[in-house]
Amino acid sequence: MNLGSILFETLDAATKGYPPTAPALPLSAVRAQGWSLLDGDLPFPQAVILDSALAHNQAWMRDFAAATGVLLAPHGKTTMAPQIFAQQLAAGAWGITVATVQQLALCVRFGVRRILMANQLLGTAEVKTVIHLQDALPDLEFHFLVDSRTQLAAIEAVASGARPQRKLTALLELGVPGGRTGCRTHDEALAVARAIASSGQVTLAGVECYEGLQVTGDSARDAAIVEDLMHRVQRVALACDAEGLFAGTCIILTAGGSAAFDIVARVLPMQLSKPVLTILRSGCYVTHDSGFYDRLLAAVRTRSGGQWQTRPGLKAALEVWSQVQSCPEPGLAILTMGKRDASYDIEMPIASKHYRRGRDAAPQPVPPAWTIAGMNDQHAYLRFPGDAVDRPQVGDLVGCGISHPCTTFDKWRALFTVDDDYRVTGAIRTFF
Amino acid sequence: MNLGSILFETLDAATKGYPPTAPALPLSAVRAQGWSLLDGDLPFPQAVILDSALAHNQAWMRDFAAATGVLLAPHGKTTMAPQIFAQQLAAGAWGITVATVQQLALCVRFGVRRILMANQLLGTAEVKTVIHLQDALPDLEFHFLVDSRTQLAAIEAVASGARPQRKLTALLELGVPGGRTGCRTHDEALAVARAIASSGQVTLAGVECYEGLQVTGDSARDAAIVEDLMHRVQRVALACDAEGLFAGTCIILTAGGSAAFDIVARVLPMQLSKPVLTILRSGCYVTHDSGFYDRLLAAVRTRSGGQWQTRPGLKAALEVWSQVQSCPEPGLAILTMGKRDASYDIEMPIASKHYRRGRDAAPQPVPPAWTIAGMNDQHAYLRFPGDAVDRPQVGDLVGCGISHPCTTFDKWRALFTVDDDYRVTGAIRTFF
Repeated sequence: MNLGSILFETLDAATKGYPPTAPALPLSAVRAQGWSLLDGDLPFPQAVILDSALAHNQAWMRDFAAATGVLLAPHGKTTMAPQIFAQQLAAGAWGITVATVQQLALCVRFGVRRILMANQLLGTAEVKTVIHLQDALPDLEFHFLVDSRTQLAAIEAVASGARPQRKLTALLELGVPGGRTGCRTHDEALAVARAIASSGQVTLAGVECYEGLQVTGDSARDAAIVEDLMHRVQRVALACDAEGLFAGTCIILTAGGSAAFDIVARVLPMQLSKPVLTILRSGCYVTHDSGFYDRLLAAVRTRSGGQWQTRPGLKAALEVWSQVQSCPEPGLAILTMGKRDASYDIEMPIASKHYRRGRDAAPQPVPPAWTIAGMNDQHAYLRFPGDAVDRPQVGDLVGCGISHPCTTFDKWRALFTVDDDYRVTGAIRTFF
Repeated sequence: MNLGSILFETLDAATKGYPPTAPALPLSAVRAQGWSLLDGDLPFPQAVILDSALAHNQAWMRDFAAATGVLLAPHGKTTMAPQIFAQQLAAGAWGITVATVQQLALCVRFGVRRILMANQLLGTAEVKTVIHLQDALPDLEFHFLVDSRTQLAAIEAVASGARPQRKLTALLELGVPGGRTGCRTHDEALAVARAIASSGQVTLAGVECYEGLQVTGDSARDAAIVEDLMHRVQRVALACDAEGLFAGTCIILTAGGSAAFDIVARVLPMQLSKPVLTILRSGCYVTHDSGFYDRLLAAVRTRSGGQWQTRPGLKAALEVWSQVQSCPEPGLAILTMGKRDASYDIEMPIASKHYRRGRDAAPQPVPPAWTIAGMNDQHAYLRFPGDAVDRPQVGDLVGCGISHPCTTFDKWRALFTVDDDYRVTGAIRTFF
């Protein structure tokens, strides 16, 4: 990957979180400023990434993939941060997953050359873009999903007019009844696979599904449902292979979000007539979280057994810090962060650290009864026992973990990275 | 305002929604491309602003403020788009409202010189920034909220070290029990006002409250509650005035979101010993919406009577368009948009327009039974009667209205403006 154009890109005070009176700086010059979150050098709210937790998570997932023998194409939609993609590839990832053609183009711009789009390709602008990129970059390997003959015909209609130099390569998507996209039945899937294999514009590279929407946190139930789905993928792959529908030198089988990737890694790998690449697409593992995924990880570790039960799990690397701006009633503190700054789609942020300058040498864990009860656009409601001795005061800093990293990342154009003392070590640009 | 630096800023394919294979262009060159949303020139999802509705809303609110004799400082947090701020100021707005010091600095950068921060000022970086801006720009008029002596003392501690050339000017915030920020009682408010008036660093410029969180849509109840709050503001203002606590040549009284601004405009204006500026801070009116605010506007128009009941109300100017990517089961279509693209904090987007190339000369209204039942990060679930004749097909375009414009704007770095035929007329940059 080539991150040069990011490192020399300038950040300035038009970017949320950047010190408003600081001069514009290239990303590469941020570290040398010596900014400290706890010392008042940065405005609030402030989303930060903890270097130590991010590095821990990269190593954890690298080891997990190595131990289970699967490949990793982390979902880039989580962070949309090429700097993090570069870390993921350096940690051994096979490629990057994206959700849209726009995200594909961004990955290509920064030098990623193996990309899965875990989504249907469709649309005039989208299909033309893929052809343009494939024709311009002979080393680009790009695969997208097809789940209907109507979609295939729409792609062919655009592609036939664009005269591509090489065929597009599709993954057949399997879905589940009551679910999202994907063929619902074996026969329907086979029919789509045959149509792809006989297309003049598109070839079949493998089979895809996404199990994450079925995961509930009930580990026995989740395991049964995900195993069943993986077995369906295997049966379809076997049938396609038996009919010689797969083009290319390898066959891709891919599944796996951040909720049950262990089951995918255990069940999905199989033997076919050509080498099989089993690819996980987990995205949220990289920063992990303090809510939804943290609860699910406990089941992943228990099911995985051995070292995965005993070594430390993934760590929450993403925090949003704000100030206590008002304590207007007993038991209520209002914080300077809101729906523009932190995830709220699964649950509210999780108040976890408390820092009072002059009193604390370092952030303290918050008492367990402190909870974020709600958020408006620019405010959060922190509730605590009104008669407690340790109460938030106006001017205190509160650090919150979040639930579901994707919907915090997309609220920031740049996030500072920090060391364990919350000194700024750099900045990570996002492209949403 | 000076929009020069925006018009010459370059958009490129790293920006979501920009055609991935188009060359980078300054904003001022976008219109000449002749792009059409309906003809496949743009990728999906795509958030667009309808020029005609935006202009209608600017005129509507200008007329409403003129008819009621109040001033307008539209809340900039909604759009964070200096190009829209410039339109609002050109339509007669007194100034712009912001929620953070970062938003203040952005307004200043683009030439806004009258700014209310409807939020507490606090924090080392924040207070220093305000002092820096005030010292550098003698024509900058900036007011922020104070609701406690603790907050005031925190400001003074930073300000006394920074030796500002002129005092900071505060608005006293009144709040309601069970509400957000703001002094809960008359006596508490008076005590804070006296502390401000005797501060060496801060002066008192007026009184503020925010009624929007109390509004439910029950018009009689809303009117009683909002009137009561406005009367509280008036009693506090009278008491402060009687004690000579207000500095400056005018006194500011400000309230008013986008839900009950008519009640504020009717009740809040009053006479004091100096000229009173009654300032509304509505933000969402400018694009309006197809959900929450649209329902509340009916009550605003009924309460306002006369021309406001008969002339057309505010129009929804913000739409998010996507493609039908899969129709995997009877009654279910999956769209290429999700939580990264459209508001979901109050309710799901509202499917409103349907376009099938080759069949339709223009977008058609969707049947009333079509509803967005849910969204994932990158997908929406469109439900419709499974046995209907008019069903979505893979490749169709669906235009959705949204509920709560703020949380759609913050998902886009640039939004195209379009004419009524969905031809691109320009682009609006946001700064979140």
